[in-house]
Amino acid sequence: MDVQGFAKKYDEVRAMPLEGGGIIRWLITHRDGAPNFSMRLINVEGGKSTPAHSHDYEHEIFIIEGNGVATIGDKNFKVGRDSFIFIPGNKYHTIKAETDMKMICVVPIKAAIEILGK
Amino acid sequence: MDVQGFAKKYDEVRAMPLEGGGIIRWLITHRDGAPNFSMRLINVEGGKSTPAHSHDYEHEIFIIEGNGVATIGDKNFKVGRDSFIFIPGNKYHTIKAETDMKMICVVPIKAAIEILGK
Repeated sequence: MDVQGFAKKYDEVRAMPLEGGGIIRWLITHRDGAPNFSMRLINVEGGKSTPAHSHDYEHEIFIIEGNGVATIGDKNFKVGRDSFIFIPGNKYHTIKAETDMKMICVVPIKAAIEILGK
Repeated sequence: MDVQGFAKKYDEVRAMPLEGGGIIRWLITHRDGAPNFSMRLINVEGGKSTPAHSHDYEHEIFIIEGNGVATIGDKNFKVGRDSFIFIPGNKYHTIKAETDMKMICVVPIKAAIEILGK
């Protein structure tokens, strides 16, 4: 397959509900030919959270808008616009939004395949 | 190694010059224990560009601020705030900033190791 590059706006991508009350858009996945990792955009309204859970793959997150508290294992971090977060695999984590948050969250492509299917 | 999660602000990370006139901050790398991919933040002033080149790994990019034109192979895409861009491996690419741009750019960890060293 000759994989083509592209540029789009995030709101061209279908939003899907997330446990905890946020919404997620899978911007770039294996379905686009991405071989190694998948970029998602997550929006969480103030008062809601990203899923509180643990899994065997990492997250790399950048906060574009909003403020909240990221919990990783037993530690809490205040985060906001211009924060970045590294969540290693197998660490419990959640982000509780204090104001409406918008963030990029990248995962290994195996997570995209597991969650979305081939 | 027990890899720890963390949250920081991007301006805590040292800025390095990029060919073309931009600056790059390697936010999360193998040095933090990231096993699969590396998140960088790139700033490019209006009138300057990201490097014009090709390499064997992909980019996944999200534009946080600013406007410009992304060239991928022989195609041009107008991009701005809320655009995302997929650049497959082995495709010539550059982004020319029309206004000051700020973007997240993710690469496989092998690129971080090659560029930064172990």
